[in-house]
Amino acid sequence: MRLAVIPGDGIGPEVTAEALKVLGEVVPDTEITRYDLGAARWHNTGELLPESVLGELREHDAILLGAVGDPSVPSGILERGLLLRLRFELDHHVNLRPARLYPGVSSPVTNPGEVDMVVVREGTEGPYAGNGGLLRKDTAHEIATEVSLNTAFGVERVVRDAFARAAARPRKHLTLVHKTNVLTHAGSLWSRIVEEVSLQHPDVTVAYQHVDATTIHLVTDPARFDVIVTDNLFGDIITDLAGAVTGGIGQAASGNIDATHRNPSMFEPVHGSAPDLAGQGAADPTAAVLSVALLLDHVGYTEAARRVQASVAFDLATRDHAAPGATYAIGDRLAALVSSREVAQQV
Amino acid sequence: MRLAVIPGDGIGPEVTAEALKVLGEVVPDTEITRYDLGAARWHNTGELLPESVLGELREHDAILLGAVGDPSVPSGILERGLLLRLRFELDHHVNLRPARLYPGVSSPVTNPGEVDMVVVREGTEGPYAGNGGLLRKDTAHEIATEVSLNTAFGVERVVRDAFARAAARPRKHLTLVHKTNVLTHAGSLWSRIVEEVSLQHPDVTVAYQHVDATTIHLVTDPARFDVIVTDNLFGDIITDLAGAVTGGIGQAASGNIDATHRNPSMFEPVHGSAPDLAGQGAADPTAAVLSVALLLDHVGYTEAARRVQASVAFDLATRDHAAPGATYAIGDRLAALVSSREVAQQV
Ligand SMILES: CC(C)[C@H](C(=O)O)[C@@H](O)C(=O)O
Ligand SMILES: CC(C)[C@H](C(=O)O)[C@@H](O)C(=O)O
Repeated sequence: MRLAVIPGDGIGPEVTAEALKVLGEVVPDTEITRYDLGAARWHNTGELLPESVLGELREHDAILLGAVGDPSVPSGILERGLLLRLRFELDHHVNLRPARLYPGVSSPVTNPGEVDMVVVREGTEGPYAGNGGLLRKDTAHEIATEVSLNTAFGVERVVRDAFARAAARPRKHLTLVHKTNVLTHAGSLWSRIVEEVSLQHPDVTVAYQHVDATTIHLVTDPARFDVIVTDNLFGDIITDLAGAVTGGIGQAASGNIDATHRNPSMFEPVHGSAPDLAGQGAADPTAAVLSVALLLDHVGYTEAARRVQASVAFDLATRDHAAPGATYAIGDRLAALVSSREVAQQV
Repeated sequence: MRLAVIPGDGIGPEVTAEALKVLGEVVPDTEITRYDLGAARWHNTGELLPESVLGELREHDAILLGAVGDPSVPSGILERGLLLRLRFELDHHVNLRPARLYPGVSSPVTNPGEVDMVVVREGTEGPYAGNGGLLRKDTAHEIATEVSLNTAFGVERVVRDAFARAAARPRKHLTLVHKTNVLTHAGSLWSRIVEEVSLQHPDVTVAYQHVDATTIHLVTDPARFDVIVTDNLFGDIITDLAGAVTGGIGQAASGNIDATHRNPSMFEPVHGSAPDLAGQGAADPTAAVLSVALLLDHVGYTEAARRVQASVAFDLATRDHAAPGATYAIGDRLAALVSSREVAQQV
């Protein structure tokens, strides 16, 4: 496997190192190329994502990203110019975000139940399209617009992906999350496509829920959800909440997937670069390691993916959550676990 | 006081009756006119909000709304044609949504702390403007757009209102919630206006938080928030979550306020019409009663507002939450409390 790694900013490099340690145990012959994209490169050269680098990235089987973002860079520069640019250029239309409450992990909600859900967030359109602008800036008559772009093509492919995932899961349940009663145009498109695709999946039960009501259910009864399909912005919001409800975004992994496999998919923790935590060796690399599991699964190393995930599950069930250990120590434990008897038994 | 009442659908009429019972105790000479807007009228006549009714509503000092919405009406019809139309026609730019965890009420999150926050949600623009459309409907090339419209005029007036509210509260803290790193145009406008207005309020401390991170903090540390100012859609989402965290939207009240007092403001529970609960006399009228408190405060009956709110606080602290009583019984209790010694002592 040819893997591109973008360690990024803040705790990004720290958690990425541990993720690669674990990866090295399960797929030792991975060919790794590092790319120094992020805040430092932007400060030094003004570059965010040069065309040449984008071209090189395309030559890989997958990308592992740590985190990008730094307080020294104005808001939006790295997000739009690097992170979202990668998602859009590489057509990462399926933004996959599982949220599972692992045994041993405590939730900030009192009655979570057994949460094991997956959010399929659309990744290449909606309010994230970057379409909009300012008119009469800095005057009393200023207008700012943001245009949510939704296409039948773009919606259908993620809805199909979400149905396929739901069909492969024990509960076979899919919830469309939107705000169809207010965003009636986009809501109509999403609803009609979900209805159409559902005809080809009579085995999958389908529900609809407004995004506002979804946040309520995520704190009162999160276990009700199986697969959620939703737009780019709603997906951003509810996956942070789902991550919190399942024990914190220290464990939330994500995949930015081109389901056609034409472009390399990119895997990253849901958490950010956490600049205040950086340099202390105190960040939890679990989300980065779980992102490796999603990556392995995507590129076809199914058994390796299961071993990584089982190692994390075992560690979370047995670790002292008040003192989980330093970043490298957690990485060491997980790297040792992937080849252990405990994990072999579970895979 | 001339009050227009729109009982609406489902449990709307049931909770409104109790709210008026309580109002009758504190402002007995209120002149009430009822308007039968909602699902039934739409089914019978096709009317949502006739111009003549809108004209009559304008002649009142305030409007009390129960809830609108019924499964027999396609999604969006009553929302856009009645509820949002009222908010937009009557220029309800300040959508005021307090979230307070009353003593005696249990939260679905494990460590809520003392939550007493207010969300000032913009109410007349953003993604709710209804601007957008469908192109090539029902073809593989369909496009749906939703345009978020944000104006300096519209943003500044709610930001000013939010700062004034923050300045009048003990903690004097204001948080702007947005997604400035992605919605860079609207985000830039909101950020600049908050910065500008903050210069006139050196006593108010200001923070910024992305909407996704806000959902995390609302479940892990909701007590950190004092006043939040945010756009129409983000406000919709986080106030449902804040309502859930403070014990459920059975107690969440809201005001749709024209801060210029040119048009009557409208007060309503955050909850919906709950059709499955309707007709059983089992709905909790507390949110409707608290909406009356917001209404009284807005029209200047400050002491009456405090009595209603103190009655609710007393009842919530002492009620059996497993069996709070029938709708009318809760209404009776609250109506008796407003003139009681317990409440008089607190006001
Ligand atoms: C950093 C930001 C652009 C990003 C997003 O909004 O998608 C992040 O919040 C995420 O969820 O991956
Ligand atoms: C019913 C709906 C249009 C409304 C909204 O989105 O504003 C509701 O959710 C609310 O919060 O008052």
